[in-house]
Amino acid sequence: MSERIYTACLVIIGNEILSGRTQDVNLNHLALRLNEWGVRLREARVIPDVEDTIIDTINKCRARYDYVFTTGGIGPTHDDITSASVAKAFAVALVKDPEAMRILSASYPAGEFTPARQKMAEVPEGAVLIENTVSAAPGYQIGNVFVLAGVPSIMRAMLDTLKNRLVGGAPVLSRTVRAALPESRVADGLGEIQGRYPQLDIGSYPFFAGGRYGTSLVLRGTNSAELDTAADEIAALVRGFGVEPELS
Amino acid sequence: MSERIYTACLVIIGNEILSGRTQDVNLNHLALRLNEWGVRLREARVIPDVEDTIIDTINKCRARYDYVFTTGGIGPTHDDITSASVAKAFAVALVKDPEAMRILSASYPAGEFTPARQKMAEVPEGAVLIENTVSAAPGYQIGNVFVLAGVPSIMRAMLDTLKNRLVGGAPVLSRTVRAALPESRVADGLGEIQGRYPQLDIGSYPFFAGGRYGTSLVLRGTNSAELDTAADEIAALVRGFGVEPELS
Repeated sequence: MSERIYTACLVIIGNEILSGRTQDVNLNHLALRLNEWGVRLREARVIPDVEDTIIDTINKCRARYDYVFTTGGIGPTHDDITSASVAKAFAVALVKDPEAMRILSASYPAGEFTPARQKMAEVPEGAVLIENTVSAAPGYQIGNVFVLAGVPSIMRAMLDTLKNRLVGGAPVLSRTVRAALPESRVADGLGEIQGRYPQLDIGSYPFFAGGRYGTSLVLRGTNSAELDTAADEIAALVRGFGVEPELS
Repeated sequence: MSERIYTACLVIIGNEILSGRTQDVNLNHLALRLNEWGVRLREARVIPDVEDTIIDTINKCRARYDYVFTTGGIGPTHDDITSASVAKAFAVALVKDPEAMRILSASYPAGEFTPARQKMAEVPEGAVLIENTVSAAPGYQIGNVFVLAGVPSIMRAMLDTLKNRLVGGAPVLSRTVRAALPESRVADGLGEIQGRYPQLDIGSYPFFAGGRYGTSLVLRGTNSAELDTAADEIAALVRGFGVEPELS
């Protein structure tokens, strides 16, 4: 049962997230997609558009996780410093990728592929492009680092092209037992069940929604039969308090 | 003009965020509130419910930033390990706070203040409580670390009680110039304006919304007059391309 676990980290590069201007939605999307691919998102960091911070964060994270994803900072303006910073993190030159130059050049009217726009063709030397089917400017992979756009529609399109480039393990599956009970009622029994299923990750999340309150008990793991058995035990625990649970 | 800058870091403790089950909204709320209070959110980390990771992250962040906020992991169940981990980070005992015991005890019917529920009264020795006006279980402050609930309504109520506990600088103000232009058109002129206003943070964010595409040019700083002048220059830059900008 000691299956190889594949791990990932997301580095969100963006003053606009830290200033509160923009609500990040890329983390959630990446997490769900990685579950399907059998890769566990273990950490995410939101950092500002500051070169030293980007270099340091990329280097720490790429040493610690199987895969690192970045979002943001690959556009044409002065605040787009992700590619220059990633090149420095890998100690390679920042070069104009010929294929990226061709794709971008074809997307503008003749004479309008300006130096600012050519900046979007710059990648760390040795990078492999990631296709952008939404707008033209590509992302890229260097080593175990995948550099994606920050705009959610483009980030998602780029991520979808990576499915066959990533090696993962068994997909992470989940079961949810919802109960109209405060989590403090089930705490002891739940801890006991977690103790007997160490391979599963069992979480307890209170909710207040649509006038209802209660607790969602979420089981995560890779073994479907084991998840079902443990979910049944949690359902029985809930029924012991006179409440009928909802399983999903 | 060398005003003291107050900085903060948010540590989101929660497997449910990293698994994709839950979309975080606390970062955005905290960022906006800190702007008003003159504190800059410089970094955020999303980490799993793993003791060593929590201890290490808290200790690194509290040494680096004026304020550290944590969300999540202060409930009654086995996966709520934030308080035990913060106590270890500060190398102090985890104790039952008498005031928290009184508040929590009063919130349950006689005889139902069970050991699992009493866990919510445990804080690192020396912590000062943060009131929870939504449900009973309090948050707390120890040193420069503020431990808040993960449920957004509770997190917000706790944060609102902190306004007079935090020392901040001048509020961070912003101006936005929206233009129906791709950001690559304004890139050169914008970089030039940023160069002349080093105290301002000028960002460029493409948007695609409601059938419209364009770029939001966002200026952030503490000097209102300087923001207005620089925003006017950016508006003039946009008009130079034959497009009428929207200022806000």
